[in-house]
Amino acid sequence: MDRTYKKIELVGTSTESYEQAIRNAIEKAAETLRGLAWFEVVEQRGHITDGKVVEFQVVLKAALKLD
Amino acid sequence: MDRTYKKIELVGTSTESYEQAIRNAIEKAAETLRGLAWFEVVEQRGHITDGKVVEFQVVLKAALKLD
Amino acid sequence: MDRTYKKIELVGTSTESYEQAIRNAIEKAAETLRGLAWFEVVEQRGHITDGKVVEFQVVLKAALKLD
Amino acid sequence: MDRTYKKIELVGTSTESYEQAIRNAIEKAAETLRGLAWFEVVEQRGHITDGKVVEFQVVLKAALKLD
Amino acid sequence: MDRTYKKIELVGTSTESYEQAIRNAIEKAAETLRGLAWFEVVEQRGHITDGKVVEFQVVLKAALKLD
Amino acid sequence: MDRTYKKIELVGTSTESYEQAIRNAIEKAAETLRGLAWFEVVEQRGHITDGKVVEFQVVLKAALKLD
Amino acid sequence: MDRTYKKIELVGTSTESYEQAIRNAIEKAAETLRGLAWFEVVEQRGHITDGKVVEFQVVLKAALKLD
Amino acid sequence: MDRTYKKIELVGTSTESYEQAIRNAIEKAAETLRGLAWFEVVEQRGHITDGKVVEFQVVLKAALKLD
Amino acid sequence: MDRTYKKIELVGTSTESYEQAIRNAIEKAAETLRGLAWFEVVEQRGHITDGKVVEFQVVLKAALKLD
Amino acid sequence: MDRTYKKIELVGTSTESYEQAIRNAIEKAAETLRGLAWFEVVEQRGHITDGKVVEFQVVLKAALKLD
Amino acid sequence: MDRTYKKIELVGTSTESYEQAIRNAIEKAAETLRGLAWFEVVEQRGHITDGKVVEFQVVLKAALKLD
Amino acid sequence: MDRTYKKIELVGTSTESYEQAIRNAIEKAAETLRGLAWFEVVEQRGHITDGKVVEFQVVLKAALKLD
Repeated sequence: MDRTYKKIELVGTSTESYEQAIRNAIEKAAETLRGLAWFEVVEQRGHITDGKVVEFQVVLKAALKLD
Repeated sequence: MDRTYKKIELVGTSTESYEQAIRNAIEKAAETLRGLAWFEVVEQRGHITDGKVVEFQVVLKAALKLD
Repeated sequence: MDRTYKKIELVGTSTESYEQAIRNAIEKAAETLRGLAWFEVVEQRGHITDGKVVEFQVVLKAALKLD
Repeated sequence: MDRTYKKIELVGTSTESYEQAIRNAIEKAAETLRGLAWFEVVEQRGHITDGKVVEFQVVLKAALKLD
Repeated sequence: MDRTYKKIELVGTSTESYEQAIRNAIEKAAETLRGLAWFEVVEQRGHITDGKVVEFQVVLKAALKLD
Repeated sequence: MDRTYKKIELVGTSTESYEQAIRNAIEKAAETLRGLAWFEVVEQRGHITDGKVVEFQVVLKAALKLD
Repeated sequence: MDRTYKKIELVGTSTESYEQAIRNAIEKAAETLRGLAWFEVVEQRGHITDGKVVEFQVVLKAALKLD
Repeated sequence: MDRTYKKIELVGTSTESYEQAIRNAIEKAAETLRGLAWFEVVEQRGHITDGKVVEFQVVLKAALKLD
Repeated sequence: MDRTYKKIELVGTSTESYEQAIRNAIEKAAETLRGLAWFEVVEQRGHITDGKVVEFQVVLKAALKLD
Repeated sequence: MDRTYKKIELVGTSTESYEQAIRNAIEKAAETLRGLAWFEVVEQRGHITDGKVVEFQVVLKAALKLD
Repeated sequence: MDRTYKKIELVGTSTESYEQAIRNAIEKAAETLRGLAWFEVVEQRGHITDGKVVEFQVVLKAALKLD
Repeated sequence: MDRTYKKIELVGTSTESYEQAIRNAIEKAAETLRGLAWFEVVEQRGHITDGKVVEFQVVLKAALKLD
């Protein structure tokens, strides 16, 4: 059977790491979406305050299966 | 009158061809969305089993008109 | 607190300028979406009739905060 | 002997497949141009009507030898 | 009927805006070419003299229908 | 268990279609390589003779699992 | 005589237009730098508040001649 | 003496982090290859199950010196 | 008030992680620059010795506000 | 006065160097075109026979002023 | 007959020129590989010591015919 | 010890070759900057007068070590 997926684009943030920023975005999205299957990192950025990195930001695409 | 479109990203699959994978994704999306107007191919991939191509996968963006 | 954003892709049009095409797309999207925070221009195109530019078209991504 | 080629950019269309859209564009170009030697696919798009793919569109570059 | 388009690449300039630079390039091209249908912005640049922007330059592709 | 894959880059050709060019490249590679799992299309080109498309060429990456 | 240029990357903002955002960035840079000769637009973004575009942001590279 | 390097493309996986996925791929490759000198990250992806990130996947190129 | 930022490009290194390599680069830059506001990851690389990853290297752009 | 340029794409070849391949392509184009003003290198390739580089090939865009 | 090629990625170096760096990489690869047919330049870099360019480095892909 | 580098972007010119244009830019930059370690070619362009190539222009990034 041919399957179809939809991709959505998310931005996640974390004060710790990009991996945590990804987990945060995926878990937030999973609150309202079912069938999330994979993700792809699109961009990595972050915020600086007083000369320190205070936030990691990740832009990612997540794919979910359409029923 | 100025028009506005929304673009969505889809992944379609087919055991036959990329054209069929595109048709499958568009027809699946059209079950729940009206006003689909055009699409753009973003990526072409596929699955291999036992040294044979068993699935063509296409990532595409489809645009639909917002009322 | 870690925030999560969703990005959507829009196409706006205007007979005047790209800035107006962007405003048209954002204001149309804001009719049904809350929490729009920023946008990024992805592509600039346009339509020609009888050797004259008759429409500016802009493809953009807009990010909205997920509650 | 050093050879020089010129590349032109074409858009071909077909209701059937991308291969046919390419053939249509090359054969149309060959009506007025001689020495076409190779082509490169740049973009693949298409048109949707009533939730069905009704046209495949291919953007390609074709190279022709300058005498 | 399958249609074929040719794309040409142009550079337009204006002391006012990118929209005017686009219009200038398209109108110049339309003096000798018929069937111009759409354009795509490829690059935006400009010239600076004495610390002031004195010219906006736009690189664009324009498509024309082959008969 | 963490898996590792190697990606190789191949060019396949066919007088018929891109799908057949992909199948030709994968089946040729499978003569000497085991564990091929997926592929990604990188580039699509072709050859023209006497104004006709005579060959479709596809550049693709194929991934194989390392034991 | 062979010349050498240095390119710097700037972000300009304006509530009005991209052209004004470019002029703002170039004029700010010209307060401390001499010999600015040309610029290239790298990215166009903007800020949204209450569903309205409130700021246009442009990322650009500007080149200045080294004496 | 002029040196020559070969670059290979690998995909590494880890349930923990991208750094561990890179280490896994490099150490696997080093089982059979000598002279690995540097790597470049090409793509970062991952797998989702039941709304949780369960695997980080990294595509990388690694360079090895040819004797 | 319209603001202007300057972007600089940095390469940071760490034996531990990309996050630490980013922090190292930003903190080094902050020794001599004020007003650093955000960063964007451009490239991720690393060094290999005796088949082990011994250094993570990150190329990033950092933006600072011009007074 | 606003100027308009047209860009054409050429492929030049040389057995010696990329600089000579560029010169060959430009001089060939200049036989039939006036007003060539600048060029941009798009791609560098070459041909190998019996394990030796026998030809350098350069793809370039050249801009000419429209009267 | 349909042909299949494999592409490999190489890095060549030379103290003289990019052309020589390419020739060095191809001739090194030809010591162990037969059927090399063409190459494509991917990246050009170099090394600096005491303010002088001391090495040109070229990353290229070379294609060889699979029997 | 973790090192940090800064990358600057330069444009060099030469009437002879790209290698000489690179050397010119690096040697000019080295007049005022210490610790230049490597460079990367970003763009290659040139100037044409009376149908002849009269200048090669190279855009490059050069990295210098921060103390």
